[in-house]
Amino acid sequence: MKNRFNALIIVLGILVNTGWAQQKIVVFQSDFGLKDGAVSAMKGVAMGVSTELKLFDLTHEIPAYNIWEAAYRLEQTVAYWPAGTVFVSVVDPGVGTERKSVVLKTKSGHFIVTPDNGTLTLLAESAGIAEVREINEAVNRRKNSGKSYTFHGRDVYAYTAARLAAGVISFPQVGPLLPKQVVSLPYQKASREGQSLKGTIPILDVQYGNVWTNIPVDLFQQLGVTAGQSVRVRIFHRNQKVYEDTLPYVETFGSVAEDKPLVYLNSLLQVAFALNQGNFAETHHIGSGGEWSVELSR
Amino acid sequence: MKNRFNALIIVLGILVNTGWAQQKIVVFQSDFGLKDGAVSAMKGVAMGVSTELKLFDLTHEIPAYNIWEAAYRLEQTVAYWPAGTVFVSVVDPGVGTERKSVVLKTKSGHFIVTPDNGTLTLLAESAGIAEVREINEAVNRRKNSGKSYTFHGRDVYAYTAARLAAGVISFPQVGPLLPKQVVSLPYQKASREGQSLKGTIPILDVQYGNVWTNIPVDLFQQLGVTAGQSVRVRIFHRNQKVYEDTLPYVETFGSVAEDKPLVYLNSLLQVAFALNQGNFAETHHIGSGGEWSVELSR
Amino acid sequence: MKNRFNALIIVLGILVNTGWAQQKIVVFQSDFGLKDGAVSAMKGVAMGVSTELKLFDLTHEIPAYNIWEAAYRLEQTVAYWPAGTVFVSVVDPGVGTERKSVVLKTKSGHFIVTPDNGTLTLLAESAGIAEVREINEAVNRRKNSGKSYTFHGRDVYAYTAARLAAGVISFPQVGPLLPKQVVSLPYQKASREGQSLKGTIPILDVQYGNVWTNIPVDLFQQLGVTAGQSVRVRIFHRNQKVYEDTLPYVETFGSVAEDKPLVYLNSLLQVAFALNQGNFAETHHIGSGGEWSVELSR
Repeated sequence: MKNRFNALIIVLGILVNTGWAQQKIVVFQSDFGLKDGAVSAMKGVAMGVSTELKLFDLTHEIPAYNIWEAAYRLEQTVAYWPAGTVFVSVVDPGVGTERKSVVLKTKSGHFIVTPDNGTLTLLAESAGIAEVREINEAVNRRKNSGKSYTFHGRDVYAYTAARLAAGVISFPQVGPLLPKQVVSLPYQKASREGQSLKGTIPILDVQYGNVWTNIPVDLFQQLGVTAGQSVRVRIFHRNQKVYEDTLPYVETFGSVAEDKPLVYLNSLLQVAFALNQGNFAETHHIGSGGEWSVELSR
Repeated sequence: MKNRFNALIIVLGILVNTGWAQQKIVVFQSDFGLKDGAVSAMKGVAMGVSTELKLFDLTHEIPAYNIWEAAYRLEQTVAYWPAGTVFVSVVDPGVGTERKSVVLKTKSGHFIVTPDNGTLTLLAESAGIAEVREINEAVNRRKNSGKSYTFHGRDVYAYTAARLAAGVISFPQVGPLLPKQVVSLPYQKASREGQSLKGTIPILDVQYGNVWTNIPVDLFQQLGVTAGQSVRVRIFHRNQKVYEDTLPYVETFGSVAEDKPLVYLNSLLQVAFALNQGNFAETHHIGSGGEWSVELSR
Repeated sequence: MKNRFNALIIVLGILVNTGWAQQKIVVFQSDFGLKDGAVSAMKGVAMGVSTELKLFDLTHEIPAYNIWEAAYRLEQTVAYWPAGTVFVSVVDPGVGTERKSVVLKTKSGHFIVTPDNGTLTLLAESAGIAEVREINEAVNRRKNSGKSYTFHGRDVYAYTAARLAAGVISFPQVGPLLPKQVVSLPYQKASREGQSLKGTIPILDVQYGNVWTNIPVDLFQQLGVTAGQSVRVRIFHRNQKVYEDTLPYVETFGSVAEDKPLVYLNSLLQVAFALNQGNFAETHHIGSGGEWSVELSR
């Protein structure tokens, strides 16, 4: 009896390792907003697949058509969910055109169901590509939805994610294997040049107005700055310097007076700038994206 | 033994067909917004009824008191949820007045708990009325909530929906049967006049600025326009023409250049207008509601 | 056999009474907004603790750093959730500084996981303090999260709340018992002075523009005003009178004509002012907070 039980465990282990998404968790992201019924329709389709699924949201407030931000939000969030979680990301300006509909399985065991339009740029790098499969819409498309070309989020992505998460289909049943690569958006990576560090501002921490860079803690430590010491910060827009000051590097916002600037490591352990209880981005008119760059030195 | 099992299945089948909401799913809609605790209080009440319920949102961003939009969001969403799902819609400018509190069971097997103030206008037509019952507040009202006349959403609607979805009460136990009719808001239906089609703009696709009409695919096909061909579009506000142009009818936004206009079938398979990756409504100052009408011809 | 069963019930009863949160419900509140991945990361951490948890939101639209509003939203909502529900509230301008991280157990059996920075001001008074424990971060902190000082919401609060709600830890295992007190923000309590009542405007009902006071129904009844009768309302900003009028006290908004003012009891059974289907606060430029006071008389 015990042997049989062990055998069962082994079989289950194999199933997990060959791509079953056992957690029954689906996490949705889109640029749909929450003012209409689009997100709810996607969840309804998922519940129609299995009422045992647990459905969550990443965000639906991605600015319309902003693939870069979709990529960033996945990068910011996926790792905190259990392996086996299935993500759906629908920022899809090319809906109905030639872009492929894919499911990425990361080396960390997460699944992302999305148009392959750049949305996977950052996650594919950081978490690594285990497998990429193209969704076979002949099978993995909601019945009788063929006439609508514009809501793949509901008819293909939510439907496929739900079936995968519920175990109705295995990962191979998603569709044919593709080469281990995804469409990538170009962006400036963080780097060291002599005694200074260069990077970009991939995103603003919108709620508080903090400015996030893509310079990771490991690179920052090469500057040799410890908590309480100062950092020279320069911010450029289209190569024009728009901000320069010397800021203390601190571990907590409360280390400086209200409205005073500071350098800190954000929740992704990347260098960021803030005003304690103030709005750095608004005060200094800082934006984010490919046109913004930063330079740090002692 | 097998016979008994079969008998059980039959009994269960009868229970389902006579109105039990077996899915344990409740979907909430309101004009409360998400800035305060009102939506959460409704869900807390539902969890107090049964922690086995699965609670979801349609939207809580219905503009304050806008019954028409509540009706439209239900119409846009309900069909994508499994039969047996219980919806709560609370847009209730007349809270505490004579409007009846009802539960509609549609012919599709969905339940909607709502004030009968026009919220059911569209769904009653499209999904059909199986039964309408008036909520008996003597039974179906949260205990000790009698002093508050202004939050029926929490004290009556969420409470009744949760009890119905959890199987604490059957559909007949909601309250007495009413005639098979609901309060309906007046609106212009889509129609054909000679070689042109007329309709209204029931709503904007706010996130993207697309303009949706109420002209369904079946009617549109009578124009004989196929993908790639042109459609003459006229838009009127209070019978004044505010827009006229000839647009290509396409299956995917990407079929036209960026910022170019197009005609397409939206996710409800109704005729809509858009700018590819642009905002049609904002660019051309188009609104929605009873004062807006459209005319299509070849 | 029956005796053993009874013994089990007694043991379970003791477990409940000594602080187990058996409902497996966690409700999140923050000032993070929903535009980025922060809320989702917290939920991912909770799902990593146990996929059996049921996760909900109170609101994430608390204005940045506004501890008072966090306190008010908890007061507005907690009582409607079943005893045993675990709340996480993260409005934490002092993250990483000396403020303590605590879990309050109320006399009503609810748990609130939060920085002790004033967030518990109102709930501790209304629901009563059963116990307060300081979170022992040596145990109750997500593994390998030590380098990030700025996201306690994810690494400490969500993690601890999930473990408490899932039964991974008991309430005593949260950490050491503290004195039965919490950090309290100062505010003007409602009071009677001769023939008039005084109070403050703790918050606006933002979605509708209604003005809420902190004058409870019991105190209001001492004025002897019954439905349909008039109330003299004076509103002051920094002791300057900004509004004075005589309003009918009504049970339902529909009792007065559209856009007419009224006095009513809000969903917390406290005195409030509104325009029927209009926006009282916007029309009369009324705000909320410590600088605003009201006076009611016959």
